[in-house]
Amino acid sequence: MTETTSYSGNGFVLVKNPHLDLMEEDVLYHLDLGTKTHNLPAMFGDIKFVCVGGSPNRMRAFAQFMQRELGLAAASEDVADICAGSDRYAMYRAGPVLSISHGMGIPSISIMLHELIKLLHHAKCRDVTIIRIGTSGGLGIEAGSVVITDTAVDSSFQPRFEQVVLGDVVVRSTELDKDLAEELLACSRDIPDFPTLIGHTMCTYDFYEGQGRLDGALCSFSSEKKLEYLRRAYEAGVRNIEMESSAFAALCRLCGLKAAVVCVTLLDRLEGDQIRASHEVLWEYQQRPQRLIAAFIRKRLGLTRTD
Amino acid sequence: MTETTSYSGNGFVLVKNPHLDLMEEDVLYHLDLGTKTHNLPAMFGDIKFVCVGGSPNRMRAFAQFMQRELGLAAASEDVADICAGSDRYAMYRAGPVLSISHGMGIPSISIMLHELIKLLHHAKCRDVTIIRIGTSGGLGIEAGSVVITDTAVDSSFQPRFEQVVLGDVVVRSTELDKDLAEELLACSRDIPDFPTLIGHTMCTYDFYEGQGRLDGALCSFSSEKKLEYLRRAYEAGVRNIEMESSAFAALCRLCGLKAAVVCVTLLDRLEGDQIRASHEVLWEYQQRPQRLIAAFIRKRLGLTRTD
Repeated sequence: MTETTSYSGNGFVLVKNPHLDLMEEDVLYHLDLGTKTHNLPAMFGDIKFVCVGGSPNRMRAFAQFMQRELGLAAASEDVADICAGSDRYAMYRAGPVLSISHGMGIPSISIMLHELIKLLHHAKCRDVTIIRIGTSGGLGIEAGSVVITDTAVDSSFQPRFEQVVLGDVVVRSTELDKDLAEELLACSRDIPDFPTLIGHTMCTYDFYEGQGRLDGALCSFSSEKKLEYLRRAYEAGVRNIEMESSAFAALCRLCGLKAAVVCVTLLDRLEGDQIRASHEVLWEYQQRPQRLIAAFIRKRLGLTRTD
Repeated sequence: MTETTSYSGNGFVLVKNPHLDLMEEDVLYHLDLGTKTHNLPAMFGDIKFVCVGGSPNRMRAFAQFMQRELGLAAASEDVADICAGSDRYAMYRAGPVLSISHGMGIPSISIMLHELIKLLHHAKCRDVTIIRIGTSGGLGIEAGSVVITDTAVDSSFQPRFEQVVLGDVVVRSTELDKDLAEELLACSRDIPDFPTLIGHTMCTYDFYEGQGRLDGALCSFSSEKKLEYLRRAYEAGVRNIEMESSAFAALCRLCGLKAAVVCVTLLDRLEGDQIRASHEVLWEYQQRPQRLIAAFIRKRLGLTRTD
């Protein structure tokens, strides 16, 4: 079976849960939204792009940036948090673009994605593209480089995500949409002031021991063992490390969403563990995936630059 | 080896990382604090209690509540976010009590704990008690009950936490401090308006499939299979389910911190999956662990009620 077939059909999101149809109401608890309390088709039916990232402030800034990029509002104009009744996630929209924070780590993004996918389903959205714009540690590439993920891999460099279902492990594919990755890479060629590349992304359950950092509260290994592990990751094709891509890739793929992961690297892990760049440098780094995605969305919408 | 010995000695936090001594500076990136930019002993040296929970708003409310309970300020007085430079976590203090949010899931709490434990180490804190005050799904107990965890268990009901270190799995104990749990249970007897009990807490990597919910974007099992799994969990001693306790128990234990997990249950999972109680009811539920911990801290500090 070629799994690209799940992208064809009528373009709706595929919710694979027969129980949902039997529910009179669906409370999307962590988003503070629901099918009885909100008119989800009216609120979200025209959404075509969903961008997700860890930090609520960053996703708010991205929505404001997209408002300006799409000519919808002045850059200074504020955006309202659609999930203001919950402090678990923040959600903003700018035209056909939804911008949502997911916190840090697989469990946190997974809760958000389950509820987001049901939201898109209830709202009868069609042909939605979803992109994670995040931060990461780089491997053997210059800090500030942007990595477009082709496949998320686990800590053994395997393209799989292990989901526990009723105490049993189910293994899922973590391949992302190849055409979308190439389309994004093509867009990056118009932005010459930072390097962009396609590579594997290693997804871990932990920032310190799980990523081989020497600077956590616990560390039982030597600098040599750490470098040996990170070099093996590099040899396996890993170019950056973060904490959400495998669950994101697996869930989006199963639900028929064309998905991409675009992360900037804040440092080169072969050279250190601590993130020591200034706030200003880090802020500019974090804007790089946003600029790339804005260019991509403008292109998709047929907008040409007027500024 | 009886691991209680790690609690004795001089009362300092045990950072088990020989590399830390060699670092000229330690940037606690996700807390936006550091050893060169902040005088950590002056800021935190007198901290005796650390309370952590998922939601930033809740942990802010808890700090305000503790200010009042300790007679330090009026209830209306605001508290400042010590980590205001980062939106990953929020941190507040009220006298000797630190209140910190950790987001949702093991990876998120794990990043916070690594940096918090290093913070307590750099600040030369002594005899610190750490308590997670959270929300959870209950098993076979009335919604609104408060569960004090004796042991966190995984999705196979085993008392273990699997940490990946350089691609290999290391298994860690998830037992919590028995004396502290009993002390908290004793405090609960003075608060008759909600039930409090000691039990096992199941810690999962996911809110939907991992906890056997029928209402996620994906669900491949029947209502019968779900109930069979949850009943097996109940038989194994599990009284509530959440997403952070096992990593919390394992990390705190290894670093010599006396730790407790005190969670309110928002629903009985044997009766449903969706959290449908009103905001008002949920808000009152969430205050229950806070009230118990306030009573505990007041007792420890030798304060008697004057109001």
